[in-house]
Amino acid sequence: MNAAVSLDEKFAQIRDCWSPHIVGELNGQHVKLAKLKGEFIWHQHDDEDELFLVHRGSFRMEFRDHVVELSAGSFLIVPRGVEHRPVADEEVEVVLFEPAGTLNTGNIRNERTREQLERI
Amino acid sequence: MNAAVSLDEKFAQIRDCWSPHIVGELNGQHVKLAKLKGEFIWHQHDDEDELFLVHRGSFRMEFRDHVVELSAGSFLIVPRGVEHRPVADEEVEVVLFEPAGTLNTGNIRNERTREQLERI
Repeated sequence: MNAAVSLDEKFAQIRDCWSPHIVGELNGQHVKLAKLKGEFIWHQHDDEDELFLVHRGSFRMEFRDHVVELSAGSFLIVPRGVEHRPVADEEVEVVLFEPAGTLNTGNIRNERTREQLERI
Repeated sequence: MNAAVSLDEKFAQIRDCWSPHIVGELNGQHVKLAKLKGEFIWHQHDDEDELFLVHRGSFRMEFRDHVVELSAGSFLIVPRGVEHRPVADEEVEVVLFEPAGTLNTGNIRNERTREQLERI
């Protein structure tokens, strides 16, 4: 039986910021939800393109040479190999679409890395 | 330069129902937008899973043995090989994630098939 997934209901289950949760899988890709607030680290994904779709709120994606502002109902694709840093002045709810196994901190491993993601 | 894509702005460019438009590509997958109204045809995708995320409105996905109701802010993944038919009583705006090259009518080719999709 295939079931609908409510983004609102799933986001309500997420407490921590910067902790992506898996809510779907298809064609080797994961659909993840994450709450962001504050500054993340500069990183890149050498082998994965990454899509950020804003569900609620707004944030900005910093690149080394420009900044992209994103608000609810807009998305951005960050190509593989491009350094980026998400920054959210207020908490924002973001849907991610990226290959299964994509590490949240890309080429960096530190205290912000989440190796194991919860499925909700 | 990477740019934000506004779903509202892109949907405003789409006039015909049942005509998916490509708005993004990543990792061999396409992000498509489609307006749906009325009944589509029964079909399946033998090799592709398909995600339907409702941006505005509501519709139902009929399967041979059950029906899933979808409203704005909810999504459904239809696994490969599973017959399905989207039905929308009122016009609905849907975001699709699926492998590049996925045919809208899957294993069926008829007058509703869209071989060439416009990029907007």
